Amino acid sequence: MIAPDSFKGSATADAVARHIADGVLAAAPDALLTLLPMADGGEGTLDALLAVWGVPARELVTVDAIGRPHTARYGVSADGRVGVVELAAASGLPDVSDVALQPLHAHTRGTGAVAAAVLDAGVEEVLVCLGGSASTDGGAGLLTGLGARLVAHEPATVPSSTDGELAGRVVPDGGEGLARVVGLDLDGLHPRAREVRWRVAVDVTNPLVGERGAAAVFGPQKGARGSDVAFLDAALVRWADLLERETGVRTHELSGAGAAGGVPAALVAVLGAELEHGATLVAQSIGLPAAVADADLVLTGEGSFDSQSVNGKVADAIGTLAAAAPGRPPVVVLAGQVLLPAQRARAAGVTAAFSIAPGPIDLDELVGRTGSRLAELAASVMSLYLGSVRR
Amino acid sequence: MIAPDSFKGSATADAVARHIADGVLAAAPDALLTLLPMADGGEGTLDALLAVWGVPARELVTVDAIGRPHTARYGVSADGRVGVVELAAASGLPDVSDVALQPLHAHTRGTGAVAAAVLDAGVEEVLVCLGGSASTDGGAGLLTGLGARLVAHEPATVPSSTDGELAGRVVPDGGEGLARVVGLDLDGLHPRAREVRWRVAVDVTNPLVGERGAAAVFGPQKGARGSDVAFLDAALVRWADLLERETGVRTHELSGAGAAGGVPAALVAVLGAELEHGATLVAQSIGLPAAVADADLVLTGEGSFDSQSVNGKVADAIGTLAAAAPGRPPVVVLAGQVLLPAQRARAAGVTAAFSIAPGPIDLDELVGRTGSRLAELAASVMSLYLGSVRR
Repeated sequence: MIAPDSFKGSATADAVARHIADGVLAAAPDALLTLLPMADGGEGTLDALLAVWGVPARELVTVDAIGRPHTARYGVSADGRVGVVELAAASGLPDVSDVALQPLHAHTRGTGAVAAAVLDAGVEEVLVCLGGSASTDGGAGLLTGLGARLVAHEPATVPSSTDGELAGRVVPDGGEGLARVVGLDLDGLHPRAREVRWRVAVDVTNPLVGERGAAAVFGPQKGARGSDVAFLDAALVRWADLLERETGVRTHELSGAGAAGGVPAALVAVLGAELEHGATLVAQSIGLPAAVADADLVLTGEGSFDSQSVNGKVADAIGTLAAAAPGRPPVVVLAGQVLLPAQRARAAGVTAAFSIAPGPIDLDELVGRTGSRLAELAASVMSLYLGSVRR
Repeated sequence: MIAPDSFKGSATADAVARHIADGVLAAAPDALLTLLPMADGGEGTLDALLAVWGVPARELVTVDAIGRPHTARYGVSADGRVGVVELAAASGLPDVSDVALQPLHAHTRGTGAVAAAVLDAGVEEVLVCLGGSASTDGGAGLLTGLGARLVAHEPATVPSSTDGELAGRVVPDGGEGLARVVGLDLDGLHPRAREVRWRVAVDVTNPLVGERGAAAVFGPQKGARGSDVAFLDAALVRWADLLERETGVRTHELSGAGAAGGVPAALVAVLGAELEHGATLVAQSIGLPAAVADADLVLTGEGSFDSQSVNGKVADAIGTLAAAAPGRPPVVVLAGQVLLPAQRARAAGVTAAFSIAPGPIDLDELVGRTGSRLAELAASVMSLYLGSVRR
């Protein structure tokens, strides 16, 4: 079985899986291969799921994280039952990095629009993949994209003139809007939004607010400086207070709610979403547990095999599955770089890890040779497996 | 079984073997290990043999390749039966690289003195390891070191005065002397020189003279420029003519006679030496064939695993032995760099080859981490072997 993560910046999980397959077949032409490109629930998950489902990406013209027209990709499984919304595909930071970062203004409204399109497609389950966000909006944008309305002032306090009433009701997008919102109007919410199962792939344990919260920990990498962080943290507190008041669900300290600028808070409180371990969620979605149990040898891979890898990433999920499988298939990691000691890898269920580096080499050259080196390394690993298992 | 070559410039074969053993035992504490540091018959062979024999080096104060006082190391097996003379240890190019190269003058007399010491020790067999020579003397120096005398003029043509007679008989050391020698006086040859078996490790197929000969191919790297090469080639022809006349043995076109400035020519013609494939000779000397046949897994290694490696070097010798062994143990190469495609490695009996590079890294840093990376890689290989063989 071949189930690699992507090599970030050089090859998708699907491409990595194919290169590994080329190498395995060179050493063992009769090998029966199952290719299951994996992902950890963050960026790249959409592509991995599309590859396993064998369906093309769908597209929606919506807005990016700062409101500019943007075409976002998303996916629906071949049986139409599961939809996948990747936050990075609609509201990702790379897409708005051509201009100055806007940490207070960036939002997830485009992701909400994609989610609405997925609901329109009739799915029963929506996988929301976080990671790569530009915003700290507590998921308010995602809700508005699904048809909810943020209320800035109670109607009773609004001046009687129409202009004034409209002005008073305008809530800016992004974290800055959370500081002014006083109510949540769900009347316009997509009619299927509360009928489907929402599963959110989360790979951090940060709470929504406070020292380890979304603003404090992840705000700076989105451009929040100086007083921005304190402002955004206070806005998230205000938002979480409102969500708790409206739904009865408290998300301030919820583990994982601090991911992607607080998006899980809105999804959990309003839509009853389940926060799940990203790589495990993807593994289940592509049928990995059964495939691991059937495998004689499991080959996985990722750009960097390090302490993160065995702490919630793809290799961790696969190592855990293999250790629990009756046949205990060996798990081999093929990586751009191997930083984790062999002993710690084994403790995580990873039998062995090898770098694709053929010797002293610089990063750019190695990235350029990723495909051929993966095939060569996979051939060597397969050859050693065969030479050993036949004894 | 662990039988690596040295990593030239960073670790001896013995050190490499120990690092690999550390890694194997980390993954398989109960493994039964046989450590047989290997060499290809060139530089490093003496150290590898000393490590396997478990004896210290012996030393002789003699001269270097340009006649300066020099202490040379050599070895005698624990049972006293086999002696090893490494040309590079006595007459090596690195030892005379502090001054301008002397391609016409450099010689192998020091190596002959070491050979005499080995004969004095009572051995029955002398292994002569070539490689790293500074000279192109056709082995004339080695013979004089063993007590032979080069004759410049037939006595009949020498003037009657004592001074004149002595002057007429002086033959300069090195290739330049070959142009003046007219006879070979073996009366003073070490009395045991023709009683023992001489085995010469050769890893090239070049003949003594001509376009592919010792002067033309290897002369330039020893400093021969312009007319030097033609002069040395003519001197070697004259020397080979003389050897043939004196012994009846023709060495001009002998495959391998062009190694080390033509040293094999003198050894073969005068002492009946056998030219042997270097790595195979060393393998036999350390009992490698039996150890490979007994092994479940063979780990070897070298600095660079490339097309040379499977063409007469250590990996080639081990791969050939393993392929012929009834149990066909897998052979895994751990290398500083892996340049040979996996398919060509398999064709040479090498199951798999892995680089110790953990990812993008420069040469100096990798050399500095050779030991720890070898251990880590060996642990991974052992872990994969165990995970596979237990299935």
